[in-house]
Amino acid sequence: MQLYQMQISPNAKRVRVAAAELGIQLDVQTLDPMKGEHKQPDYLAKNPNGKVPTIVDGDYTLWESTAILVYLAQKQGKLIAKDPRGLAETVRWLGWNASHFETALFSVAFERMFKPMMGGEPDQAKIDHAMKDVERFAPVLDKHLTGRDWMIGEFSIVDIALGTSVDFSTMAKVDFSAYKGITTWLSRMRERPSWKA
Amino acid sequence: MQLYQMQISPNAKRVRVAAAELGIQLDVQTLDPMKGEHKQPDYLAKNPNGKVPTIVDGDYTLWESTAILVYLAQKQGKLIAKDPRGLAETVRWLGWNASHFETALFSVAFERMFKPMMGGEPDQAKIDHAMKDVERFAPVLDKHLTGRDWMIGEFSIVDIALGTSVDFSTMAKVDFSAYKGITTWLSRMRERPSWKA
Repeated sequence: MQLYQMQISPNAKRVRVAAAELGIQLDVQTLDPMKGEHKQPDYLAKNPNGKVPTIVDGDYTLWESTAILVYLAQKQGKLIAKDPRGLAETVRWLGWNASHFETALFSVAFERMFKPMMGGEPDQAKIDHAMKDVERFAPVLDKHLTGRDWMIGEFSIVDIALGTSVDFSTMAKVDFSAYKGITTWLSRMRERPSWKA
Repeated sequence: MQLYQMQISPNAKRVRVAAAELGIQLDVQTLDPMKGEHKQPDYLAKNPNGKVPTIVDGDYTLWESTAILVYLAQKQGKLIAKDPRGLAETVRWLGWNASHFETALFSVAFERMFKPMMGGEPDQAKIDHAMKDVERFAPVLDKHLTGRDWMIGEFSIVDIALGTSVDFSTMAKVDFSAYKGITTWLSRMRERPSWKA
């Protein structure tokens, strides 16, 4: 199975972590965004969005990192809830992250990390706006994690998806120290061999 | 089953449409955002995000509209793919919409519809920025829909989720006329009795 990725992408990292947890060997193809490799016709034929990650598993090509996690977990029959309510919980948190939390976190990361890389200046008004959303949604996650080891019962792809979002934003100096539920959960995740690899 | 909603919310509409398609009777509780009913403690106890929709099915409370669609469809055993690849396709398109397409569409709708309702002025720079994303992602959907009646084989919750996003944005004068795949699919959906109800 091939993974097309960029090294820094948290969405690609979540696929690498999930594959390591599931014992799936990946043939990792790293694209160089500075050379525009994600906008070349051969890559756009695989993923018309020009984004990473994308996997190719035989005749099946799949993009959107959360869908890749669901696919890998189901392929191995691990790390995903099998009952209807567990699947609803999975989609609830993946959707919540994609629609609200990660959107805010990545907006801060874009301003503070990527813009300077591309020679731009961080826009403080955009950071302030996104941080308001972070402060609105982080307590929801924090409260859910308080008294729980993992997001939904056992360790699952939901932890991997949300964990990579939170972990990445700490590189952009988003401060979670007020949220003990989040920080202890993140520490627990960072100790896993899959995370360090 | 109770649905907490706001009348104008496309995320609530998708739950109403799905319930109608699935033959699920909803006890609809409409919140008034002008009175801040979505920020009252009794509602926040159900949905700590202070957003709609939320459903309460006996002892189970669920929020995030895409998770609600998955839950309802699985409960009835209809409108959702049952095989692993079909589920990956479902999560792919729900995730793509939440992360990219709907984000851009709703940003335009916020500026053009909600801001004036609240006495503000649309920010043309934000509309232009969001429209660039619409123009980046709409062709991906359009190409997928060209030659297909529905998103994934048969009519499913994916059509309902993406359809309500697109339909709502047409109220904010987002113009899809260049995308025949999208417009013919949307017309097909608008003809369904569930949509008109």
